[in-house]
Amino acid sequence: MKRLEYTRRDFLKALSACTASMALPWIPGHAATGKPPNFIIIFCDDLGYGDLSTFGHPTINTPNLDRMAQEGQKWTNFYAAASVCTPSRAALLTGRLPIRNGMCSDKRRVLFPDSAGGLPPSEITIAKALKTKGYTTTCIGKWHLGHLPRYLPTRHGFDSYYGIPYSNDMDRVAGEGRQAFFNPKIEYFNVPLMRDEKIIERPADQTTITKRYAEEAIRFIKANKRNPFFVYLAHNLPHVPLFVSKDFKDQSLRGLYGDVVEEIDWGVGRILDTLRQEGVAENTLVVFTSDNGPWLTFMQHGGSAGLLRGGKGATYDGGMREPTIFWWPGQIKPGIVTDLGSTLDLFATISHLAGAKIPRDRVMDSLDLEPALFGTGPSPRQTMFFYRGAQLYAVRKGLYKAHFITKPAYGSNLQETRHDPPLLYNLGHDPSEQYDVARDHPDMIADILREVERHRATLTPVEDQLAKRIGDNP
Amino acid sequence: MKRLEYTRRDFLKALSACTASMALPWIPGHAATGKPPNFIIIFCDDLGYGDLSTFGHPTINTPNLDRMAQEGQKWTNFYAAASVCTPSRAALLTGRLPIRNGMCSDKRRVLFPDSAGGLPPSEITIAKALKTKGYTTTCIGKWHLGHLPRYLPTRHGFDSYYGIPYSNDMDRVAGEGRQAFFNPKIEYFNVPLMRDEKIIERPADQTTITKRYAEEAIRFIKANKRNPFFVYLAHNLPHVPLFVSKDFKDQSLRGLYGDVVEEIDWGVGRILDTLRQEGVAENTLVVFTSDNGPWLTFMQHGGSAGLLRGGKGATYDGGMREPTIFWWPGQIKPGIVTDLGSTLDLFATISHLAGAKIPRDRVMDSLDLEPALFGTGPSPRQTMFFYRGAQLYAVRKGLYKAHFITKPAYGSNLQETRHDPPLLYNLGHDPSEQYDVARDHPDMIADILREVERHRATLTPVEDQLAKRIGDNP
Repeated sequence: MKRLEYTRRDFLKALSACTASMALPWIPGHAATGKPPNFIIIFCDDLGYGDLSTFGHPTINTPNLDRMAQEGQKWTNFYAAASVCTPSRAALLTGRLPIRNGMCSDKRRVLFPDSAGGLPPSEITIAKALKTKGYTTTCIGKWHLGHLPRYLPTRHGFDSYYGIPYSNDMDRVAGEGRQAFFNPKIEYFNVPLMRDEKIIERPADQTTITKRYAEEAIRFIKANKRNPFFVYLAHNLPHVPLFVSKDFKDQSLRGLYGDVVEEIDWGVGRILDTLRQEGVAENTLVVFTSDNGPWLTFMQHGGSAGLLRGGKGATYDGGMREPTIFWWPGQIKPGIVTDLGSTLDLFATISHLAGAKIPRDRVMDSLDLEPALFGTGPSPRQTMFFYRGAQLYAVRKGLYKAHFITKPAYGSNLQETRHDPPLLYNLGHDPSEQYDVARDHPDMIADILREVERHRATLTPVEDQLAKRIGDNP
Repeated sequence: MKRLEYTRRDFLKALSACTASMALPWIPGHAATGKPPNFIIIFCDDLGYGDLSTFGHPTINTPNLDRMAQEGQKWTNFYAAASVCTPSRAALLTGRLPIRNGMCSDKRRVLFPDSAGGLPPSEITIAKALKTKGYTTTCIGKWHLGHLPRYLPTRHGFDSYYGIPYSNDMDRVAGEGRQAFFNPKIEYFNVPLMRDEKIIERPADQTTITKRYAEEAIRFIKANKRNPFFVYLAHNLPHVPLFVSKDFKDQSLRGLYGDVVEEIDWGVGRILDTLRQEGVAENTLVVFTSDNGPWLTFMQHGGSAGLLRGGKGATYDGGMREPTIFWWPGQIKPGIVTDLGSTLDLFATISHLAGAKIPRDRVMDSLDLEPALFGTGPSPRQTMFFYRGAQLYAVRKGLYKAHFITKPAYGSNLQETRHDPPLLYNLGHDPSEQYDVARDHPDMIADILREVERHRATLTPVEDQLAKRIGDNP
C-alpha cells in the first residue's frame, strides 16, 4: 500500500505545481489504484447517539473511536432504517426498506427463536453483491435475519459466519423477570454461538464474546489481506443483558454499560491497528454505526441518545439516528458531515466502490454517499422514512421532519398519537424535536406529503416474515 | 518561545536516553522557563454543555474549539459555581462561593441596572492577584459584578476594560414582551458599551460585539506579548437577545443561535492563531468555558445541555456543568479529563502558576488543578456545592450527587421540592440524573451530610449585594 501513498503524493505534488495559487481540493486516492477496496462494517446493538466521547458522552471513554472520527468523518445526521434490530439489519444489508421485503411487521417487532421467517432468499445483500466481484466475505456477530438454515449468513452471500443468530436476551431459561437483565448470568440466556451453520457453544459465553468477535475479525483480515474482503462485524452488545470480559469489568465511570462500550472501542482500535500493520488501511473503508437507539427502559443498563428525543422503538431521532464514523485514511476527507445519510446507503456506496451492480429488478432505497465521503459534493440523501413496525410514522426531508404518528420509545405505556396536520420540526435548529413549526411551513408539509405519496406508490404487498412461527400452517 | 521548545525537547531526549525502555511520562515544560505564563479565560454566557461539536452537537460547527480540545484537554465534569450570571462570575474571579461575599441572593437572581451593589472592594480577583506579580491585565466583555464606578473591572485589578457592564437583555426600552427577544433589534436594549470607566457607545451595537471583543483581545495580546498578561474575555452571547455579524448570519444549520456560537468559535480560532503567530502559544494557558447552562425557556434561542438534565437556574447538572477546554501547547497533557473541576479553581491554579499568593485571611473554595492539567495526578476537587440563590440545593462528592431541594430551570412554573432523604444520583453511571440510588447508598448520603455540616461551619453572614437598589436607604 505504500506504493499507493507515494503515487497519490506524487500526483498531488504535480497538481500543486500547476495550481500553486489555488486551494487544493481533496483528491481521493482510491481511483489511482486498480485494486478494489476492502470493506468493514462495525455495527453495534442498541448503542445510543450520545454514547461515544466524540459524540459528547462525559463518562464513556472511547479513545479509539474518537481517533477514528478525527482521522475520518463523523456523521451527525446518519440514520438506521428502523428503530429495532431485525428490520434495521435487513435494511443495512439489502439497501431496501424493510417494508419491501417483509422484514418489519405490526405483529412482532423482530424475529424470535420460534420464528419461521427470515430475510427472503431473493434478497441481495451487500455480501452477495460483493461475491460477484470476487470478494471474500464474512459475517461476525449477531445475525437476526432468520436462524433457520435457509436464512443464515452462509446462505446470503457470506463465505463464513461466527456469531449468535438472534439477540443476546433470547432463549431465556432462568432468572427472574427484569432482574435477569439487571443481574444477568450467562446460563440465564441459552443463546447458541454458531460457526457457519453449526452450533459450537450453548449458551454462548457472552463475557468473552465482544473480544472473540474482534479477534475473529483480525484473524480474517490477516488471512485475507491479499484479496478484496468484506467484514460485517455486528456486535450483539451493548444490548441488554450486558456482559463484559474481566479486562474491562469495573473500568468505566459509566458502570457496566460503559465497560461494554469501552470493550467494543478497544476492539475497533485493534482492528484499525491491524489494518495499518498489514498495510491495507489505505485500501479499506471502515464504517462504524449502530442498529437503533438506546433501550431506555433498562435505565442505567441502556444507553443515551444524547440531546436527541426518544430511544429504541421510537421514530423520534433518538430511536434511529446513530453515532456514525467513516474511516479510510488518505481517501475520505476528514471532518464532520452534517448531511443526511443512512445505513440504507451502504449497499450503493460499497457496491459502486467495488464495481458491483446495483440491482435494477427491484426498488432500492440506497444512495451512493461517495460525493460526501470524498468531498466532491453533498450527500445525495434528502429524504428519510421513519417506520415503526409496518407503519410510516414520520418523514424527514432536508432539515424538516414531519411526524404523522408519534409514540414513545419502548417501555412507555403511552399510546400512539396521530397528528393531522403533522408535527413539523426543523432538525437543524431543533435536533431535540421540541418545537413544532408546522404553522410556519405549510409548504414544507405539502412537499413531504408528496414524498409520502410517491413513496407509497412504490410499495407492493409482501409476506410478513416476522409474523411466521415454527409450526404455523404454511 | 522557540528556545523553550528546544530546551524541552533536549530535556526529553536526554530523559528518553536514560529511560528508553519505559513509557515516557508527560513532562510539562513551563517549569523549565523562568518566564511566568500568560492566561486567557474565554467565558461564554448561557452556552449549554451540549453546544459545541466536540461536546456532541450535531448542527453547531465549532472547528476551532474542536481543535483546541484535541490539542488540549476537554473537561467533561467541570462546573460553574452558580446557575446564573452574577454569582457565577463572582466565583470565577475570586475563587470563592458567592455565598461568602454576598454575590448571591434569594431576593434577586443577578445585578440589574438599578442595582447599587457589586463585588465588594475587599474581594481579591484573579486580576488583582496577578497584579502583585507584575501582570498586565484586561477585562473584555460582560462584567456583571456591579456597574457603579467603585465596582468596575478597573477597580478590581484590571488595567483596562472594554465591554458591557451587565447582561445584553437589560435596559430594555422597546419591543413587545418575549417578541423583543425572538426578533430583537439593537435599539430595544439600551445597553452601554464602556471603555475603562466611560460609556463610549449606547446602545452597544451587539451585531458586531462578538467580533469586536475578539479583535480587542488580539490587539491586547500583540501589544503585551513581552510582558506576562491576563485576558478575561467574557462574551455576552449566546445570552438572548441573540445578535450576530453579517459574516456569520444564516451560516449555521442551527439557526441564529448556531450563528452566534460559530462566531464565538471563529474568535477563539483567531486568538489561538495570534498566540501561535506571536510566538507565545507555548507560554499561554487558555481556558474556555461558560457561566451557566442554557436558557431553555427561550426555546430555539436558547442552547442545549446535551444529555444533562435542566438548564440555566437549575441545580441539576444542565444548569452548572459547562463545556470546558484547557489549552497550552507543549504543557498541558492532551486528552479528556473526567475528574471534577470548577471555575472556582481557576484562581488557585492561575495564582500558583504565576507565583502569586493565595489569600489566607478568608475562606477560599479554589483548588489548584495542575496535577490534572500536567498529568501528574488526579484533580484535587472532590466536592461541588450547588446553590440556587443563597440556598444550598445539592452537593456532589466524587461520582455521587445528593439533591436536598430540586426546582426546574428558569421558565418552569413548577415549585421547589424538598427531599428528605435527599435524592442521590451516580453521575458517572447516570449523567442525566434520572435514577435515584439513595436507598442503596445511605453511607454516601451520610458522608455528603457531613460535608454540608463542615461547609456550613465555614459560612458567616455577609451583606446581600444583589438586593441593594440605587436610592435605597443605606
